[in-house]
Amino acid sequence: MKIERIETIPYSIPYSHPLRFASGEVHAAAHVLVRIHTDEGVTGIADTPPRPYTYGETQASIVSVLQDIFAPQVVGLDPLDREKVQRIMARTVNNPTAKGAVDIALWDIAGKAFGVPVHKLLGGYTDSMRVSHMLGFRPAPELLDEALRFRELYGITTFKLKTGRRPLSLDVEAARVLREGLGEEAEIYLDANRGWSANEALEVLRRTDGLGLSMLEEPCDAAEAMSRRRLVRLSPIPVVGDESVPTPGDVARELLSGGCNAICIKTARSGFTQAKEILGLCTGLGVDVTMGNQIDTQIGSLATVTFGAAHEATQRRAGELSNYLDMADDLIAEPLTIRNGAIRVREAPGVGADIDELKLARYRQDT
Amino acid sequence: MKIERIETIPYSIPYSHPLRFASGEVHAAAHVLVRIHTDEGVTGIADTPPRPYTYGETQASIVSVLQDIFAPQVVGLDPLDREKVQRIMARTVNNPTAKGAVDIALWDIAGKAFGVPVHKLLGGYTDSMRVSHMLGFRPAPELLDEALRFRELYGITTFKLKTGRRPLSLDVEAARVLREGLGEEAEIYLDANRGWSANEALEVLRRTDGLGLSMLEEPCDAAEAMSRRRLVRLSPIPVVGDESVPTPGDVARELLSGGCNAICIKTARSGFTQAKEILGLCTGLGVDVTMGNQIDTQIGSLATVTFGAAHEATQRRAGELSNYLDMADDLIAEPLTIRNGAIRVREAPGVGADIDELKLARYRQDT
Repeated sequence: MKIERIETIPYSIPYSHPLRFASGEVHAAAHVLVRIHTDEGVTGIADTPPRPYTYGETQASIVSVLQDIFAPQVVGLDPLDREKVQRIMARTVNNPTAKGAVDIALWDIAGKAFGVPVHKLLGGYTDSMRVSHMLGFRPAPELLDEALRFRELYGITTFKLKTGRRPLSLDVEAARVLREGLGEEAEIYLDANRGWSANEALEVLRRTDGLGLSMLEEPCDAAEAMSRRRLVRLSPIPVVGDESVPTPGDVARELLSGGCNAICIKTARSGFTQAKEILGLCTGLGVDVTMGNQIDTQIGSLATVTFGAAHEATQRRAGELSNYLDMADDLIAEPLTIRNGAIRVREAPGVGADIDELKLARYRQDT
Repeated sequence: MKIERIETIPYSIPYSHPLRFASGEVHAAAHVLVRIHTDEGVTGIADTPPRPYTYGETQASIVSVLQDIFAPQVVGLDPLDREKVQRIMARTVNNPTAKGAVDIALWDIAGKAFGVPVHKLLGGYTDSMRVSHMLGFRPAPELLDEALRFRELYGITTFKLKTGRRPLSLDVEAARVLREGLGEEAEIYLDANRGWSANEALEVLRRTDGLGLSMLEEPCDAAEAMSRRRLVRLSPIPVVGDESVPTPGDVARELLSGGCNAICIKTARSGFTQAKEILGLCTGLGVDVTMGNQIDTQIGSLATVTFGAAHEATQRRAGELSNYLDMADDLIAEPLTIRNGAIRVREAPGVGADIDELKLARYRQDT
């Protein structure tokens, strides 16, 4: 089997509820659908979300890197030779979601070629992931309403609160209102998306003491090196690296230098192959992981479920899987469902995301 | 004065002598010329070299980031408000040369508006920089011929040898031949562009002991975190971070964690504003800097001279300024000259790179 061509289709689907957070906001899923075609008719599918405020990618840069740099080097290769493709892609720096999409599409091809669901290829630990729901910037009472509604509707009991605002009291108040309204049993954690300084984050930790928060993600810019290390030393709860650790090398450097002590894994930026490396690094070093959301579509969320359900360490914590609920539509043929607070893997060969061609025709931007 | 528009012109000029090194090779300068136009007729100029193997940028990604993301936010701002522009650009991750070009063009505007050369605005320490010449992958005797010719022609006595090849004996032999042929007084240093492992680099250091090499740049991938720290601890000569330290935050993290103990500054990726921050960080921490070359055109090299001559610390070591000699042509109206091993700053207002419009018309790729 040989890779015949890489198809890159920019498309845009509006959000019914725009998401706001410290590093940016999203009004439409202007992504790139990647399809890798083989000479045997098997096609691998992945979704590619450009996040300039996190990775510096745009739709145009993703198409350019895939078509101008990667395609000439990978066309003709066996799609199962993922490590060869990794070496080729590694020669181009950054562009994590462009690389991640290629890798996930190759795993999808492998699953389809073998007639096996990819969560089995990856590890097959369990068949579903619990869902953590992300709460963006809104007034505290609205956040609580949303959380209660999601608990009622979907059975979700883990909530990630987007923080990083000033004055700090906005976020402190939101955390308190959520804890009081949701009760003891809900898991609540914070993600500041680099919105605070390290010392502001420490103040928030003092002011939320007793609220039973479980983690603090990306409290400040990792470039604030000395102060962030002090924060990590003093924090009573794990400090999770996310956008500071997009690659295995970044993970190693941040963990070894004390810049964080837990790691967020995102399949959109790591693909499955690098996510496996990061997972091995973290379990080897004795460090917690969480499965994050790159504001993914259902196609991207299904990739996260596929990876997250496959390993013991990735399914321990709830995965961030519900952002797609804010989208007005999706390219996926068979929609995801959240039941009892969890999303199930697909049992079809591959990752399991078939495309609705009519919707693709409607939302694609290149015709 | 207000920024009116950002002009981005992709162009391509062939190399008469392609450059080969461990992380890539270059056959043509397929860059993007950036011109920032103001409502008062002052135009800032900068050159933008895409280096996918170092920063993940392409011509298309540079144009996309500048036109789709930055232009809508900076048009209408005062071009002197560089810190505002920095904050805007910081919200987009990576894309260092796209950002660097905007910053240099704004400094160019400032110099022109004030009627002063930018090296004076930046510091005005001296009026020229000594030139270090880069020797790419070629057989050792040819490298020596080239070095002797450049010493004879231009008075250059500092040479950077591109290394990172296997077997290691290729590079060890090249270093020996250069030292024997050039004599004691020449400065010779190595740049492996991540081509070796940390342990291979240590072997090269043992095998080149006694050759009087002055520095070892980017010996291995910074992601090889533990082994690289061991290398840095054991190396008798400074280990220079280059592509591992594109931003001030990266510089801080690598220095604090022992991943390098000297820093290469490149104006193409840092602009002048971030290069100043990096310089302050390094002189504050007591760390050597070198002025590097992003395989720059004469426009880019003039920017490096402008910055490098402006500060005491940046002009101590010879700057890497001669790559442009391998190009078949250039967009600059008045060519650079190397005399007595040095390039002089321009005394015209701004950075001093006027564009030859006929050549631009000939090499631009967007018409």
